[in-house]
Amino acid sequence: MQVDRRARKPVKYARVSRKREVMIFYVCILNAKQGGAYMLSTSIDRIRKHIETFAGFNATPRIGCTRVSYSPQYRQAQDYLVRECEAAGLAVSIDAIGNIRARREGTAPGARAVLSGSHIDTVPHGGNYDGVAGVVGALEALTVLAENSISLSHPIELIVFVEEEGSVFGSTTAGSKALAGVYGVDDLKRLKDNEGKSFFDTAAEYGLDPAAIGRFRLDGEKIKAMVELHIEQSVVLESQGFPLGVVQAIAGIRQFSIELCGVANHAGATPMNLRNDPMAAASRIITFVEEAAAQKAFDTTVGTVGRIQCQPNVSNVIPGRVVFTVDARDVKPEGLETMDRLLRSEVKRVADEYGLTATVDLLGESRPITLSQNISGVIENAAINRNVSFLRMNSGAVHDACLLADITDVGMIFVPSAGGRSHVPEEFTTMEDIATGCDVLLDTLVELAR
Amino acid sequence: MQVDRRARKPVKYARVSRKREVMIFYVCILNAKQGGAYMLSTSIDRIRKHIETFAGFNATPRIGCTRVSYSPQYRQAQDYLVRECEAAGLAVSIDAIGNIRARREGTAPGARAVLSGSHIDTVPHGGNYDGVAGVVGALEALTVLAENSISLSHPIELIVFVEEEGSVFGSTTAGSKALAGVYGVDDLKRLKDNEGKSFFDTAAEYGLDPAAIGRFRLDGEKIKAMVELHIEQSVVLESQGFPLGVVQAIAGIRQFSIELCGVANHAGATPMNLRNDPMAAASRIITFVEEAAAQKAFDTTVGTVGRIQCQPNVSNVIPGRVVFTVDARDVKPEGLETMDRLLRSEVKRVADEYGLTATVDLLGESRPITLSQNISGVIENAAINRNVSFLRMNSGAVHDACLLADITDVGMIFVPSAGGRSHVPEEFTTMEDIATGCDVLLDTLVELAR
Repeated sequence: MQVDRRARKPVKYARVSRKREVMIFYVCILNAKQGGAYMLSTSIDRIRKHIETFAGFNATPRIGCTRVSYSPQYRQAQDYLVRECEAAGLAVSIDAIGNIRARREGTAPGARAVLSGSHIDTVPHGGNYDGVAGVVGALEALTVLAENSISLSHPIELIVFVEEEGSVFGSTTAGSKALAGVYGVDDLKRLKDNEGKSFFDTAAEYGLDPAAIGRFRLDGEKIKAMVELHIEQSVVLESQGFPLGVVQAIAGIRQFSIELCGVANHAGATPMNLRNDPMAAASRIITFVEEAAAQKAFDTTVGTVGRIQCQPNVSNVIPGRVVFTVDARDVKPEGLETMDRLLRSEVKRVADEYGLTATVDLLGESRPITLSQNISGVIENAAINRNVSFLRMNSGAVHDACLLADITDVGMIFVPSAGGRSHVPEEFTTMEDIATGCDVLLDTLVELAR
Repeated sequence: MQVDRRARKPVKYARVSRKREVMIFYVCILNAKQGGAYMLSTSIDRIRKHIETFAGFNATPRIGCTRVSYSPQYRQAQDYLVRECEAAGLAVSIDAIGNIRARREGTAPGARAVLSGSHIDTVPHGGNYDGVAGVVGALEALTVLAENSISLSHPIELIVFVEEEGSVFGSTTAGSKALAGVYGVDDLKRLKDNEGKSFFDTAAEYGLDPAAIGRFRLDGEKIKAMVELHIEQSVVLESQGFPLGVVQAIAGIRQFSIELCGVANHAGATPMNLRNDPMAAASRIITFVEEAAAQKAFDTTVGTVGRIQCQPNVSNVIPGRVVFTVDARDVKPEGLETMDRLLRSEVKRVADEYGLTATVDLLGESRPITLSQNISGVIENAAINRNVSFLRMNSGAVHDACLLADITDVGMIFVPSAGGRSHVPEEFTTMEDIATGCDVLLDTLVELAR
C-alpha cells in the first residue's frame, strides 16, 4: 500500500454562521484509532496530470474550456479516458449515446456495483473542473485500487454521463436521463442542436447506435450505490472555510417565465400617471422575488431572475413587453410551493396595479432529492479518518446523481470553488482540495464495495 | 373665399384632472363675433389625398411605413411635395443636405418670413402621420392662401427638415441641427449609417452639395416665427378629450446609462445572503426612478427605463452585469437636476448595499425649451375663433422646432394620437382632427404674416 505522505491540513474549528439551518457544521475530532496508520492515498501528481490533460481538449484555448458533447475535443477526451481506464485494468464500454462505463470486478459473484463518476462535457467557455473533478476522482480511486491490488467484494464502476451540461441540445443531464429511462429514442429525435440536427442523428454520426438506448437503461437491482465528487459551484465552503462538503439533499426547481404586456409609448410624451409600463412592473416583481426567497419562505429557499428581455428595448420608448424568468429552488417541497403561490399572487397584484396583462408559465420543475443518509455517513467517516473538516450542506445545482436517486442510493462530495465561480474560465479549485476530495471518495468507495 | 361647410365638433366642456399643473385646460367660449361668418378653410379631402399619397411612398407596405432619408421612397415623397408646392405657386429650393423650403412671398419688402413645416422621413416600420401631418398642414395652408389670392405682408415658407428621425445616421433632428448651425461639414462626415457610409457622402450621392451646408444656415434676422403642427405621440389629448394641444414648452432631457457589476454565480448553489446580484439591485433602482419621477420631483417630470441588458442572461445564472438606461425629462430645469441628483445617490446607495461596482454615465442632455407666449396666444385665438377646445400642454418629445427656438419665436400645435401610439404601424390620427389642426395652423400663419 502507498504511504500517505501528503501534508494534511490542520483540523479546522471554523466559526460558522447558524443562519442557514442546513449548513450544520461538523468539525471532525482527530480519530485516535487512525493516528499514524498507513492509508491508501490518491496521487496529487496524477490527478493534476489528468485535469491538465482534459483541459487541453479545448475548442477555445485561452478563453475558457469548450468541450461540448460529440465535438472533436470531446472525442479526444473520451479516447484519453478510455486509454487511462484500460491502463488501470478496467473493462470499458460505451453505450448507445456515449455514456462511458469502466468496470473493476468484485470478488463476490453477482454483487451489486458501486458507481462513481460525473461528466467531461463543458459549457461553452467554461472551466476545467466542473465534471472533470469527479471523473478524475473515480478514475484515480480505481487506479489506486489496481496499483495496490486491493480485493473488494463489489464491482466498482467509473461512469461518465454524456451531455450533462445540455450545451448542445439544451437539456441538462441528458445522458443520465437516458440511463435512468427518462429519455428514450423519441426524446433523442425531438432534441435538436442550434442547426436543427437531432440528438439521435448526432449520436449516430459520432459512431454510436442511439436506437439501442433502451438496452442500456440502468438496473437498480445491479447497483448498490452512486457517489459523485463535484466542485461546489458556489461560495458556501469557501466562505465558511471548509475543504469538503457532504451533500444531504439536492434542491428541487420551479422555473417560471413571466410575461408582462403593457403599452409601448413615447418616454418623453407620456406622463407618469398615464403609463402602463411593464418594465416598472417587472422591477416590483423582481424585488419581490428576492424578498420572498430571502424572507418569506425558508432559509434554504433561493429565487433568481437571471434572464430578462424588454421590447422594443430602446432608451426613449416606454417598453411594451417585458419577459423574465424566475428560478426558484429549495430542498423543501414547501419552499417551492410557497414561492409558486407568492409569485403568482404578486404578478397578479402588480399587473392589476399597472394595468397590464400578465402570464406566468411554469417552464419546468424537478422535485427535491434527499441523498442517502447511509452513504453520507460513510463519506463523513472517511473524512473524519483523514482529519478533514467538512460541512453538511445542500446542493442548489442539479447533478447526474439526481437522476440515479430513483434507481439507487446516492451520495455526493463537494470540494470548494474559488470565489464560487463555475461555468466560466475563472472556475478554479486547488489541486490540494481536489486531492482531498479524491481521498475521501477513494475511502468511501472502498467502504461501500468492501 | 371658400365657405367652411365642415361640421365642427361641439365645444367641449371637458372635466380635466388638476394634478398636472401644465395641463391647464381652456374651454373656448363661442366667439360671437365670428358666429356665422365665412372663414378661410383647409380642404379635408386634399389633406387626406396628401397623407395617403405620402403613405404610398413606403419601403415596407403592410408592415408600417418606412421612408428613411435619402431612400428611393424619400425621393418619391420629395418629388411629390415639390410638384404640389410648385402647383401652389411656391418657390421651391432644396439645401445642401436636402432640407426643402417652399416660399410664398409677402407684400412688404424685406419683411421677415413665417416658417411652418415638419418632416417626411419616418422610423423603420413607423406610421403615416408623424411629421407628415405638419408638412401637409403647411402645404395646405399655403395652397388655400394661393387659391384665395390672399395678400399678406410677410412671406410664408413651408420648411421640411431632412433626417428628423435619425433613422439613417442615429442622430435625431439632424436637418434642423444643420439649419441652426449646430451641425457643420465635420459632423456630416462623422455621422455614419449602419454600413459605415457618412451623412456627407450619402447626401452627395443623393445629388446634393453637402460641403455648402454653411451657406444655408438660417438667419434669425430674416425669420419672424416658426409654427409646427405635429401629432402628440402620447395619450394626453385623447385621455382628456381635447382635439387640439397648444404647446407651451418642450421638455429637456438627461439620458443616463447605469452599469452595475456584481458576481455571476449559480442560481441554485448560491444562498441569498451570499449574492452580489446586479439584477436585484437594478430592480430597486428602476422602481426608484419611477417613484422619483412620479413623486419626488415635479408633476412635469418623467423618468423611463426603456432599455436593459443582462449578462449572461441565462435563467439559471445570477447575472454578473446589468446595464440599463434612464431617460429623465422635464420642462423645468430643476426637475432634471433633481432626477440627476436622486438617481446618482440611489445608485450609490444600492450598489453599496449589494456589494456592486456601479457607474452612471450621462449619455446626453438637452435643455428645456420655452415656446413663444405670443405665438401660443395667436394659436389659442385661432382655436377660439373656430370653436375648437384646446389644452395647454407640454411636449415630452423633441421636435425640429426646438432647434429653431434659438433663432426665432416658435409655436407648436398638437393633434391627438389614437391610443398615444407613434413610431408604429398603428399610429393614427383622425382626418377630422388633422383638418382641425390644419385650420388652426392656417389661421395662425395668416395672423402672424398679416
